[in-house]
Amino acid sequence: MTGFLQAGRPPLILASTSKTRARMLEKAGLAFIAEAPGLDEGLMLQAIGDEKTLHPHDAAEVLARAKAEAVSDLAKSAFVIGADQVLVFEGRIISKPENMKAARAQLLDLSGRTHTLHTSVALANNGGTVWAQTDIANLTMRKLTPEFIGHYLAAAGEVVLSSVGAYQFESIGSQLFEKIDGDFFSILGLPLLPLLDTLRREGVIES
Amino acid sequence: MTGFLQAGRPPLILASTSKTRARMLEKAGLAFIAEAPGLDEGLMLQAIGDEKTLHPHDAAEVLARAKAEAVSDLAKSAFVIGADQVLVFEGRIISKPENMKAARAQLLDLSGRTHTLHTSVALANNGGTVWAQTDIANLTMRKLTPEFIGHYLAAAGEVVLSSVGAYQFESIGSQLFEKIDGDFFSILGLPLLPLLDTLRREGVIES
Repeated sequence: MTGFLQAGRPPLILASTSKTRARMLEKAGLAFIAEAPGLDEGLMLQAIGDEKTLHPHDAAEVLARAKAEAVSDLAKSAFVIGADQVLVFEGRIISKPENMKAARAQLLDLSGRTHTLHTSVALANNGGTVWAQTDIANLTMRKLTPEFIGHYLAAAGEVVLSSVGAYQFESIGSQLFEKIDGDFFSILGLPLLPLLDTLRREGVIES
Repeated sequence: MTGFLQAGRPPLILASTSKTRARMLEKAGLAFIAEAPGLDEGLMLQAIGDEKTLHPHDAAEVLARAKAEAVSDLAKSAFVIGADQVLVFEGRIISKPENMKAARAQLLDLSGRTHTLHTSVALANNGGTVWAQTDIANLTMRKLTPEFIGHYLAAAGEVVLSSVGAYQFESIGSQLFEKIDGDFFSILGLPLLPLLDTLRREGVIES
């Protein structure tokens, strides 16, 4: 099934090592190569501004563009997808937890409150971004007991460390939430429908 | 991982043979048995009213309740989940396509237009419904060419016949849509977050 839309069209690269993003594109029937963008996101954020004052919307989009362009520089004829997601809670950008102890602390913080995900996708060709979009979603966690968080983390395992919110929303992460307001694909890490629309307009996939 | 929330609690039954619904509950970490509800939905709809005049919202909820109660009658101590989904397009209820030719005609009809999904879930115990909820989602298909529909159906295969809209939204069905307005879990066939909330309140899963 994979790639049924792309015979004789330009190659497609996903500039991300995220398994969730790769799975979304595979499920949509696309053929692509996944490449690590090879950027230090911390250094990038420092270069473009203070993380505390930079608008999270801009941070996500700047990083998505930078990832797409870095890989596009090395593969000019391909179309390259870059993506980034920033979690904002009480005005602060929250990073991925470094270990299970940090994941536990983060879930206790987010418990019973609403946080925001800013999810950007950029498409680059010939070294430059040809299109980008950033989506916003608001997620409200239910009030979690420390016992539940312990059981949850034991069941989910270290895979939660690959998510900005220490949750795997597409699997048992659904246990954590009371209310979701936003696009499901964007919450998973990629605004899929506008990306597919752009790939059609650019002639990368069949329309 | 499965069932980490349910040690020493009442058994849970899904009164549905839908693989998508079973997968949603598995991903949420629940342990359950799937049972066919053993109802003739066509006869049910005839019994409760004329399909053409019955409000789709009521049709979905009556069927979800009937499925849950039919299985609950045979397993009184268990909690039983029933679900149903009704697709409404231009005021008519659209049934699952019977074959690939009908699926093709249905996609041509829905192309470039907005349709509505009414998704109901009911929870029964001791033969009676203890809770039910119906969600509404509006989905806008992009304008599809007959060629694209042909390629899409060839790639998707006969699994599309198990969906009311002749699409598998969680996989390559994303290729069909321009805009989605509604809860992703409900679109897949089960309003998951309110169901989990009810299972917690009823003591069926850990809160």
